[in-house]
Amino acid sequence: NLTIAQSSVNEPKKETLSPKKWFEKISLRGYAQVRYNRLLETNEKVKCEQCDRSWGENGGFFIRRGRLIFSGDISDRLYIYIQPDFASSVSNSFQHSFQIRDAYFDLALDAKKESRLRIGQSKVPYGFENMQSSQNRLALDRADPTNSPVSNERDLGIFFYWAKAEIRKRFAYLVSSGLKGSGDYGVFAFGLYNGQNANKTEQNNQPHVVSRITYPFKLKSGQIIETGIQAYTGKFVIEKNTKNKATESSFIDRRVAATLVVYPQPFGFQAEYNVGEGPEFNPNTTTTEVKSLNGGYAQVMYRKKINENHITPFIKYQYYNGGKKHEIDARRYIVKDLEIGAEWQLKDYFELTAIYTISDRTFEDVALPDNHQKGNLLRLQAQFNF
Amino acid sequence: NLTIAQSSVNEPKKETLSPKKWFEKISLRGYAQVRYNRLLETNEKVKCEQCDRSWGENGGFFIRRGRLIFSGDISDRLYIYIQPDFASSVSNSFQHSFQIRDAYFDLALDAKKESRLRIGQSKVPYGFENMQSSQNRLALDRADPTNSPVSNERDLGIFFYWAKAEIRKRFAYLVSSGLKGSGDYGVFAFGLYNGQNANKTEQNNQPHVVSRITYPFKLKSGQIIETGIQAYTGKFVIEKNTKNKATESSFIDRRVAATLVVYPQPFGFQAEYNVGEGPEFNPNTTTTEVKSLNGGYAQVMYRKKINENHITPFIKYQYYNGGKKHEIDARRYIVKDLEIGAEWQLKDYFELTAIYTISDRTFEDVALPDNHQKGNLLRLQAQFNF
Amino acid sequence: NLTIAQSSVNEPKKETLSPKKWFEKISLRGYAQVRYNRLLETNEKVKCEQCDRSWGENGGFFIRRGRLIFSGDISDRLYIYIQPDFASSVSNSFQHSFQIRDAYFDLALDAKKESRLRIGQSKVPYGFENMQSSQNRLALDRADPTNSPVSNERDLGIFFYWAKAEIRKRFAYLVSSGLKGSGDYGVFAFGLYNGQNANKTEQNNQPHVVSRITYPFKLKSGQIIETGIQAYTGKFVIEKNTKNKATESSFIDRRVAATLVVYPQPFGFQAEYNVGEGPEFNPNTTTTEVKSLNGGYAQVMYRKKINENHITPFIKYQYYNGGKKHEIDARRYIVKDLEIGAEWQLKDYFELTAIYTISDRTFEDVALPDNHQKGNLLRLQAQFNF
Repeated sequence: NLTIAQSSVNEPKKETLSPKKWFEKISLRGYAQVRYNRLLETNEKVKCEQCDRSWGENGGFFIRRGRLIFSGDISDRLYIYIQPDFASSVSNSFQHSFQIRDAYFDLALDAKKESRLRIGQSKVPYGFENMQSSQNRLALDRADPTNSPVSNERDLGIFFYWAKAEIRKRFAYLVSSGLKGSGDYGVFAFGLYNGQNANKTEQNNQPHVVSRITYPFKLKSGQIIETGIQAYTGKFVIEKNTKNKATESSFIDRRVAATLVVYPQPFGFQAEYNVGEGPEFNPNTTTTEVKSLNGGYAQVMYRKKINENHITPFIKYQYYNGGKKHEIDARRYIVKDLEIGAEWQLKDYFELTAIYTISDRTFEDVALPDNHQKGNLLRLQAQFNF
Repeated sequence: NLTIAQSSVNEPKKETLSPKKWFEKISLRGYAQVRYNRLLETNEKVKCEQCDRSWGENGGFFIRRGRLIFSGDISDRLYIYIQPDFASSVSNSFQHSFQIRDAYFDLALDAKKESRLRIGQSKVPYGFENMQSSQNRLALDRADPTNSPVSNERDLGIFFYWAKAEIRKRFAYLVSSGLKGSGDYGVFAFGLYNGQNANKTEQNNQPHVVSRITYPFKLKSGQIIETGIQAYTGKFVIEKNTKNKATESSFIDRRVAATLVVYPQPFGFQAEYNVGEGPEFNPNTTTTEVKSLNGGYAQVMYRKKINENHITPFIKYQYYNGGKKHEIDARRYIVKDLEIGAEWQLKDYFELTAIYTISDRTFEDVALPDNHQKGNLLRLQAQFNF
Repeated sequence: NLTIAQSSVNEPKKETLSPKKWFEKISLRGYAQVRYNRLLETNEKVKCEQCDRSWGENGGFFIRRGRLIFSGDISDRLYIYIQPDFASSVSNSFQHSFQIRDAYFDLALDAKKESRLRIGQSKVPYGFENMQSSQNRLALDRADPTNSPVSNERDLGIFFYWAKAEIRKRFAYLVSSGLKGSGDYGVFAFGLYNGQNANKTEQNNQPHVVSRITYPFKLKSGQIIETGIQAYTGKFVIEKNTKNKATESSFIDRRVAATLVVYPQPFGFQAEYNVGEGPEFNPNTTTTEVKSLNGGYAQVMYRKKINENHITPFIKYQYYNGGKKHEIDARRYIVKDLEIGAEWQLKDYFELTAIYTISDRTFEDVALPDNHQKGNLLRLQAQFNF
């Protein structure tokens, strides 16, 4: 939690005589999350494919994320960030494969690195919770309403980021201080990207377009409040069941979202909401069609330090009504989930999170056209930072 | 061969003023095994899917293992061990993929690290040869009778290990000295794990349970002798050919094993035997059913130092009569293999092993219900340690 | 561009008292190439599966190569080179997987390392452009005529390399100086390898055989000129469409090639040509059969330094008439491509290449038996070296 996912703000450096060694330019760090979701479970049919494949029947111990991060300032103008995940699933019988999450290269356009061009696969600047590292998030999974537009949060393309050096330092502080900031994706962001989500081949001839403005205001009291707005548009090609009656596979895909974050000093509040339109399965006609969608989440939290520990209880509610374009048939969702949990952080290397989840989920596709599930369960996660 | 796969025994440390650099906390080492199995071959139909896919017809040069090990003490209480294998096979046309073997995180429960909680994917504490690194084993492959219960030796779960600090040092010495110890999996071990083997998704709702007690006795002569006992139980879901008449896929799976190791100082002896029950294909009825199983191996070896070389000739015999739950239909096996070989080790970085194998194997499933093969061959392996 | 893909020429070393740390023995470096091929495109049906899967319809931003290189001298006699690619594609929905390109281990047979045995997966010594790293090549893709015999340039086996220490230094200089040398694959090379190309399982019982002789002559003017000759032979097993009428899958596969390189000091010229025979799809009979093949390329380039930049304009023409054994049905090809481009290199960490490609390609298999496509396009690549 004490690490920063972006290149450090440029500081004037003296010329050194001996060139840097490789291990002074590139560093390795990472984290891993091991979960168990089967305690106090009332309905094993409640699941969330996007969140956690070990939720529900036949789930067991599960490595949700295993990340190794190779990053560093290679020169005065080039910063690299290569993050494999070692918990990627090729198939049920080939788990724990290595796959890229991030592989991006930042070219600083000015000496102070206020303007940067980011090339490669990286996070699409849409939403605060999406930008925030899973290493820092309180809830085990991102909220469906704002994560469904960018499954895995990332895509392949070219992005421009700008922020004043002073604000870049503030973004860095919001992570290093343990306040669970988003990292530095600029005050202003603009990008072109394939639009089929991370690690998928492009399926059409036009890129998606995204833009975002966010600002972390610092009050006289020291309290930091961040507000943001973001939007994207493009065409998305879905995967269909052969019995899906839709003749088209390509659908309009566009959204706009608003963000408010009051950092936990010690009380915090966080909310995001988005509206838009995109493909959604219609169980009445067994077809996927363009429909409007909307949803968001709100979270309150309280951060308390006790000796070498940080305890952060929180409550989060989310609502989503719309399709998930990246799932088969653009599966139809109505989600109303309440999470009551707490994160215990021991020094900087171990975290244990327990969440009681009260879930109400409708998720329908050609194979399961009438599927409304309710249930409660206890979710546990051990996180190791290294 | 001079490296240790477990966290070092805790030693009191002085407070240092500057925090450790990443490369002082995490280290990288590894090894690779390149094989050729086609010389002096008398029957190309003799194969062993579990041992070495390049054994038999159409085999050629083969990277059996390629391991990179990222490990280290991250803090006073957290040790990490992340071991990708880069010789993993997604399919015949996608070889040499990176996949996790180990990804575990040890939390020390006391300052001397006598009690540890291991979370993640790691070796299931069942059998001495299973615990011993392939980097150190004399034979090219583990014996079928004791390796078949835990293919790839590992699973995902939570394990408790305990040993006195003095014995932990002895376990470490047995590896660092070149005596080919097992590494430190405690004197006492207890674990809960998914039970479908490493890198496979869990297929049912109950974890497997395992426990082990082992002890390396040191005689007055300096000779070390290790004895152990271990057992596990659970339910296993097999993969079936569509023509398999079994109505169930889930089977009881339990075994108990005994171990005796006389370390090669310079003469050594090693034997393990296990009995139990589990799924096994029955070619008479074309069905998979629960059957009892038994088998073991015995090995004698002699370790000789000549200048910068270690030469270790050995003879190993194994017998197994039972099913292999992790293969299609829980394939039926009767194995009687004799191996006569020698390992030549040059300093600590290169090893060449040559083994003449006299094999007698019955392996039967729905596709090949009558299959008894006998044959001899010369097996060669170059190993590189780094 | 300033790095060398081979172990350094041996230099006498003093005995040091403290053993080397892991990070002094193993180093990490790498490079990545991000492309966009859709500008000024006149025919989206022109494609090249072997070159770049993002060329043509539905292509977008694309990571063509992402390489991490773990390498180093482990001891006086062992050098390791392990190069994963993180842009490997398991399927359209599982991109950016980690897969080995190189995993080889050099055993020096003499103290000066003039003779080396290379074991593992590594480049097959056939062709100059194949040996040259993609990090250094001007054109975005290797030429079809000389790259088609060894798709991905590599295979698994055992290779012998020999060169005088003085020439090994010259090979190293040709890379470190930015003259875009091939790296050091010896003056004389001989190898045995599986022959089904990198990362594929062997499909028959005989290895391929290859040999190569190359020599970098240094004129009094300082101009370096390299000439080479190479040949290989073996049997290759192709993949067939079910409608392919060929009864055999195994075909003779052999070629011989000549190389001439005048290094760009500042004007350069490079040409290679090869002839041989191998499987080729015949659209008239819907069958794959053994046919003769031939083709080559020629390139002129000019290297200019401007402050911290190197600009290298070039023109390349290639011709190929033959099958591609590693593609379905051993797809039939007639290729006539002209490329006019320039590489801009900023210091040693960033390169931008723009190429206008005038393409004329016939590529035919069972699914597309009459397919002659012509078209032009602008190809762009950003390369990051770290």
